[in-house]
Formats: sequence, structure tokens, C-alpha cells
Amino acid sequence: MTFHFRNVYLNEVATIAGPYEKKGPLGKYFDECYTDLYCGAKSWEKAEVKILNESMKKALQKNKLKSDDIDLVISGDLLNQISSSSYAVNDLNRPFFGIYGACSTNVEGLIIGSSLISSKFIDKCLCSVSSHNMSSEKQFRNPTEYGAPKPKTATFTSTGGASAVLSSAKSSIKVESGTIGKVIDLAQTDPLDMGAVMAGAAADTIYTHLKDTGRDASYYDLIVTGDLGLYGKEILKDFMKSEYDVDLSKNYNDCGVILYDLKKQQEILAGGSGPVCSALVLYTYIVNEMKKKKLKRVLMVATGALFNPNFVFQKENILSIAHAVSLEAI
Amino acid sequence: MTFHFRNVYLNEVATIAGPYEKKGPLGKYFDECYTDLYCGAKSWEKAEVKILNESMKKALQKNKLKSDDIDLVISGDLLNQISSSSYAVNDLNRPFFGIYGACSTNVEGLIIGSSLISSKFIDKCLCSVSSHNMSSEKQFRNPTEYGAPKPKTATFTSTGGASAVLSSAKSSIKVESGTIGKVIDLAQTDPLDMGAVMAGAAADTIYTHLKDTGRDASYYDLIVTGDLGLYGKEILKDFMKSEYDVDLSKNYNDCGVILYDLKKQQEILAGGSGPVCSALVLYTYIVNEMKKKKLKRVLMVATGALFNPNFVFQKENILSIAHAVSLEAI
Repeated sequence: MTFHFRNVYLNEVATIAGPYEKKGPLGKYFDECYTDLYCGAKSWEKAEVKILNESMKKALQKNKLKSDDIDLVISGDLLNQISSSSYAVNDLNRPFFGIYGACSTNVEGLIIGSSLISSKFIDKCLCSVSSHNMSSEKQFRNPTEYGAPKPKTATFTSTGGASAVLSSAKSSIKVESGTIGKVIDLAQTDPLDMGAVMAGAAADTIYTHLKDTGRDASYYDLIVTGDLGLYGKEILKDFMKSEYDVDLSKNYNDCGVILYDLKKQQEILAGGSGPVCSALVLYTYIVNEMKKKKLKRVLMVATGALFNPNFVFQKENILSIAHAVSLEAI
Repeated sequence: MTFHFRNVYLNEVATIAGPYEKKGPLGKYFDECYTDLYCGAKSWEKAEVKILNESMKKALQKNKLKSDDIDLVISGDLLNQISSSSYAVNDLNRPFFGIYGACSTNVEGLIIGSSLISSKFIDKCLCSVSSHNMSSEKQFRNPTEYGAPKPKTATFTSTGGASAVLSSAKSSIKVESGTIGKVIDLAQTDPLDMGAVMAGAAADTIYTHLKDTGRDASYYDLIVTGDLGLYGKEILKDFMKSEYDVDLSKNYNDCGVILYDLKKQQEILAGGSGPVCSALVLYTYIVNEMKKKKLKRVLMVATGALFNPNFVFQKENILSIAHAVSLEAI
């Protein structure tokens, strides 16, 4: 299902990042960075709320908007009950939709927001996401103190808050269309190989997008997935070639790989993950290149592993989903 | 923020309920009921997935639709990572938006779906929610085996799956408008008194809806909240009167109270809760009365407590949100 939007623009964006992201190649582009994971808060959860809230306020400030100028906030994150979002949005006092799509959340929010602006239900929307390395580790892989080595296919949850203002006010980046993904079950069961879990969802959504729009993969200067990591990226390329005869060898990359220097930052293993991972790359490197017209057409495919430890303990497969948004530099 | 919809109708709905709901006054109206909480599955979580999936398929069947006829599924629930929804939607193989608003989720889904139909992005949408008494108890109040008595203000998570088809195909019930709520913080900290947590959100959303539409509370034959329960209901009435001079004494009720016979079913305490609670009442009693034209205008205000035990352990207040949808019998 692909929606084509009218008069929807990506306005100024804001990114607040953690220490590992600061050390990566995009470190200099973030609006703010913290040098430790507590980010000046008393717990990892409170740290995540804090940086998400800071990204919301920074985005408002960069757009010269007050909270009251925003019609709707759409936000989601990885914490149970998407609590980072609920607590972060609290002092903005604006209408709020909470969403959940794991690491695909950012694009789910951009599609919902763009639909509502395109149809003139609203004019200005704040779309936000966060994740935090240790709040995620604690929640999904408790006890974190155990210290067992992880396989090289494991990914590293990125720390940060990222917010974008979408509106009908013209900017240099147009939100052209969005493709809503399906839940995909490729019988994957390894929570330490999320790239393999999500590659199938990315493939299904990219193929659907190209089919719905009648475009070839080469239409885009860049097709970029959310966070498949080093190995998931190769699975996707192979799968797209063999299953759909779509060649991703020239214009494809993955945000989980772009966000870090994987040679130097060996603790990151196969790459970054978490809802903020793709948002930190989209709202810095990609947006910058689009503003400079070095990238004109970008397909951002955010990929989410719908992972709940209880379901894995009960021998269920790990499901995944991917949503895509097409951005155009104008 | 209130949206007015054009050509959006509530088509056939489906409800699958658990044993406590079956014993209540609406028991005879549910499409299917289970007599034990496992519902023929091997765990409480799998039971919740099963009944939610059954409600989705029952709704399709009652509308004489196949899965492929549906453009989009919107679903949410109380399980971490809204896993009931992700797993339940899996075999439908349709585009999916996951949402989270605790017990306000059903109306959040109806508003998003109605917006997309009204603006012709989609034509047919399946909106679903679930909750399960024991999967919730296990997740939020573990260990459930402890058996400590609860105060009379505590609510009882309802068990069920509920699905509705929204579309532009005319039916006897029109989705007229929807009001998106804000996150509300009334400094409540007691997870065993969710009525008090959510009453403020209900009040804010009802007041916003009446103000945005220029309507008086008496415009509606019924204003019904999601699940404030016996005590939260009284708080809301007092608050609306004292704060906004709005009289809810004549046409107001609460789904958490309607769903059970609270005199006979003493284990329910102050009333039902969970995303499915208001949906089970809306899609049986309320829809039936609307079809008979005994109720012509209904404002359904689903209320959610954005409760995460970790945040309460860390001394944070419990936040809440409420979304409202206005339905008209035509």
C-alpha cells in the first residue's frame, strides 16, 4: 500500500545522540551529544526520556515554533508501553499519537503525519523516536551484567532522540510517498541476528514500493535500510537479486552501518539498531546531502524486528516489518 | 485537535470474549466466548493472540470480505511491543500500523483509520484491539500467584479481541469526528487506582471535543468513557462540573462498569479495563442500540493509563491519555 503525498515537506530536524554515536563518522552533525549513557539523568530510562524530549524541543526551536504551533505529535520507541515517548511528550501538552513498529517506527510516524498533512487534517506535525543502548539491553537482554560475548551478527542499540517537523511549509525536501509494510515471518528465531530477521521485511517493502510506483531501483540515488547491519545488508542484496531480480549493488546502504565506524568501534559488532538509528542517519548525513543536492531522491526503508522476549521463550518466530518513505530534494 | 470525517462508516464488527465477560450482562452479544482463560492455547500470551486473530477473521467474514480486500490493518494491545497485534495480524498478510495508547488504543485506531478513509488514501481498514486478564496481570503485576487482596479501586483487565471494519461503504453508523487527546499528568502514582489516573485525561478530551465542535454535552445521547470504573466515573463527573461546568449526570456512563455485573461479579472490583474493554461494549451494546436508533449520537471516549511498572518503581507519576470518536446513527 503506497500513499502519494501532496504538499508535505520535511522541515528542520533535530538529533541528540549518545557517546557511541558521537564517536562515529556522523558525530559532528548531531545537535547535541552526551559523553555518557546516563545523559545527566538518574536512570537509563530517564536518560532516554530526557534526550527524546530534548530532541523535540530542539526541533521546535530550529523551526522557530512554539509547542502550541504543532497540531500533533507522533512518537514511538522501544521501551515497553512506549514510555519514553509518553513521558517525553508530556510537557509539550499537545495532541499525541503513540505508535510502535520497533526500528521501523520513525517511518511509520512520517507516513501517518504526511497523510494527515497531505489531506489537510493538520498542518504541522512533530515526528519523534528514541532508543537507548542500556534501557534496551536491560529490557530485552536482562541481566545485562552477565557479560557473555555476543556473536558478530548481533547489533548494538543506538542511543539518541530524533525529531522532525513535517508541514505544508515548503522546504528543500519533499515527502513524496510512503509505503506501509506487512508483518513478515521468515521463521527466524535468533534475537542476536536481527539483520536476518528484518531483511525479508525490507525486501517485501522495497519490492512493493517499486511495483506500486512503477519505478526501477535506479530511480533512487540512495535506497537506505533502517538497521540491517553488515550481514543483513548482504542478505537483502542477495534476496532482492534472486527473488525479484532487483539490483541493489549500486545505490544501497544501511543506516546501522553508516552510523558507526565498524572497524574502529568493534563493540558495535554488525551495526547499530533501535528506532533512533535510522533517524540519526536520515536527519544528519542524508538530509545534509539532500540539501546540497548531492542526493536528489532517497528511499528510506526503516526495518523493525517485532521482538518480545516472552514470545521467543515460548518458541514463537521473531516477526518483522518495514515501512518506506520516498524523499525528494527540490 | 478534532478531525471531521467525510464518508466514513462503521461496518460490521466482531467480538471474541473471555469467561468473565461472558458472565456479564453483555455475554449473549459476543460473537464467540471462551469459558477459560487459555482459550484453547498453550499460554496466556498465545491465547490473546488467538482471540485477537479470531476477531479479525470474524470481522472480515461478517463483512463478506477477504483479507486482500482490506487496505490496512491498525491494531494495538497492552502486551510489551504490542506483540498480540503483530502476531495476530501476521497471517492476514496486509499492510499494518501498530499503535499504542493503552486502553485508549481502540479509538486511536478508529481516528487514524477514519482519517485515511476520509482523505481517500484507503477505502477499507480493519481496526483491532485486544487484552487478556492474565497476560496483563503477569506482565504488569508479576508475580500473579502472590494473591494479595486488591483495593476496591482496582480494575480488572478484560479478556477479548475486538475488530471493526471501517470503510466508505455506507452503513447505519457514521464516524462523524474524532478528537485526539494529550498526555495528562495529574500526579497520580497508584497503579491500583487507574480510574483516578485516567479521569483527568477523559475530562480534558471531552472538554476539548465540546469546545472544538461547539457542542453541549446534551448533544449526545450517550457519552461513554473507556474504563474509568465505579470511582473514576464519579471523579470525572465531579471534575467536569467543577472545572468546566459541564453536566454529565444525565447521559454519561463507563464501559468498565457496563461490561460486568459488578454486584454479582465481585472479583471485577471497580470495573473492567484494558483496550478491549471499551471495544467489547462499543461493538455490542452501543452498536446494537445505534442500529435500533435508540441511541443516535454517541461520544466514545477511550481512556488509557500509560502505565509502565519500571517508571513507577523509579517514582514517576502515571500518565494518561484519552481519545474520543463521535458516532452517528443514520
